[in-house]
Amino acid sequence: MILGLDIGGANTKVASSDGSLAERIYLPLWLGARLDVELERLAELNPRAVAAVMTGELADCFENKMIGIISIKTAIEEAFQCPSYFWGVNGFDPQDLIELAGANWSVSANYLSRELGECLFVDMGSTTVDLIPIKEKPLASKTDFLRLTNGELLYTGMLRTCVGNILRFGRIKGKRVQISSEIFAITADVHLVLGDLSLEEYICQTPDGSGKDKKSALQRLARCVCADLGEIGEDGALAIAEQVRDRQLRMIIDAIYHQANKHDLTRVVAAGIGENLICRAASYLGLDILPLSRIYGPNLSNIFPAFAVARQLEMDIS
Amino acid sequence: MILGLDIGGANTKVASSDGSLAERIYLPLWLGARLDVELERLAELNPRAVAAVMTGELADCFENKMIGIISIKTAIEEAFQCPSYFWGVNGFDPQDLIELAGANWSVSANYLSRELGECLFVDMGSTTVDLIPIKEKPLASKTDFLRLTNGELLYTGMLRTCVGNILRFGRIKGKRVQISSEIFAITADVHLVLGDLSLEEYICQTPDGSGKDKKSALQRLARCVCADLGEIGEDGALAIAEQVRDRQLRMIIDAIYHQANKHDLTRVVAAGIGENLICRAASYLGLDILPLSRIYGPNLSNIFPAFAVARQLEMDIS
Repeated sequence: MILGLDIGGANTKVASSDGSLAERIYLPLWLGARLDVELERLAELNPRAVAAVMTGELADCFENKMIGIISIKTAIEEAFQCPSYFWGVNGFDPQDLIELAGANWSVSANYLSRELGECLFVDMGSTTVDLIPIKEKPLASKTDFLRLTNGELLYTGMLRTCVGNILRFGRIKGKRVQISSEIFAITADVHLVLGDLSLEEYICQTPDGSGKDKKSALQRLARCVCADLGEIGEDGALAIAEQVRDRQLRMIIDAIYHQANKHDLTRVVAAGIGENLICRAASYLGLDILPLSRIYGPNLSNIFPAFAVARQLEMDIS
Repeated sequence: MILGLDIGGANTKVASSDGSLAERIYLPLWLGARLDVELERLAELNPRAVAAVMTGELADCFENKMIGIISIKTAIEEAFQCPSYFWGVNGFDPQDLIELAGANWSVSANYLSRELGECLFVDMGSTTVDLIPIKEKPLASKTDFLRLTNGELLYTGMLRTCVGNILRFGRIKGKRVQISSEIFAITADVHLVLGDLSLEEYICQTPDGSGKDKKSALQRLARCVCADLGEIGEDGALAIAEQVRDRQLRMIIDAIYHQANKHDLTRVVAAGIGENLICRAASYLGLDILPLSRIYGPNLSNIFPAFAVARQLEMDIS
């Protein structure tokens, strides 16, 4: 089998080209997580080839992107005996290694372009949302900076986004209150207490190192307004969660509207751990919706670039 | 001498009642910093009494505020042989220990009320700004939650505030671009590259663990738009810094305007490592300005609650 890898700054995603393997491993590179050890474990699966994409080169343990790219590429080449192929924004094995930077959306979009045709592909992960317009081919810009500029990359995620980054001011019992800029709570807490995220899906660390139970998450949300549950009650903490979720949904609606309008697209293909939120946003806009989990199952939807890069290599080789 | 302590979540500030000692120690409680060891070192100064205030009870290593208060209070009582006194929002040694929560602004305001009379006292630290209206006496609310609600506590600071929390969208070379929600750069980087903060004043850790030189700070700022300096140049990184500083200044102007207007105050007394920024904001509004560094020197202005609590105890005892 061909092993697909998507090495992010916070998570490494793994899939096999036949779809039987789909795994997400919390591996925060900027905290010094041992990518080499994890890759050696994966090498024991004995794939006939490795196909890889990355976004982890942006992690701030690397002085610049090129250093990050070389470091991640070398780690993969050293861990696997079989040939390894790297997908850049223009396809496998680019002339210039910098094309490998942040290319995971590109392989998903290329694969879906062949499989599903014209659509707006929207993939929401732990920290970001990719919005890739696909006409005859994917139309997004080639660097993260340009995608950010063009609204094709949105910084808001299902797990690790700081609550204060999404919501500057909240309302509690009719009072307007500024939200702390400290990472007291994250979107994983928000979606957990609202029932939109299961305990198993809360795969990053909690901001305070305490539990992933609902009570602990509510405590973290209360801390965002410098309070504890004794002061604002569970109602108050839930109110914050609802406002963060609503604001995040609004951000995604605006971003989808902008891209669908600009490229005259009427169908949204949704993927990632935020697939449901994307579907809600697309539904609000009256667009056609195709969740990738309906075709490939939820496990592959959640780590789609890792699957797409393995499939793409398989098609290219055969 | 009497030793004044202000135990924050990120920094512990120390001063003597005669003003000869003024020290700020980076001691991040939520990262497990050893407060007990630091206090034992300070006990060797042999003060005749200790006067303490705190905000560190909100640090997310403590399950709730009361647990934080008891933990910090006990650490102080165990480290020092001499009597120790704790300032709460209603004065020393409150009936209910919860009054010790976030009371450092209160002792500064009480002391200044006696010394300087009617003013708006504004103290900008590493993470927050306190805005305390003083008429016959300090008028601010008694809890951090209520102060946040009333705009008497503002989450924006000179050092540790995430750049993405202040600026959602930046402009680089005429393009609008979203700022990443990751802690790629902080306000210390912003003020350092703009020359408003010296290397010695950059007393917290850098977000990426690399240098506090200007080049490294510019690299961190570029990362906020998913770029490195090769992509946007030093000009682009500086443009981000300027926009963050301008937005932060605007936030402080708005907050001061609101309080001055509400309480009919015409004089701002400025303190903290952000004293200059407060003066700029007050000057923009045409208010009278008194920087505390002009009376007490910059060292005491930067750690004013620690000095004020020591002075307050001295006056109460004598």
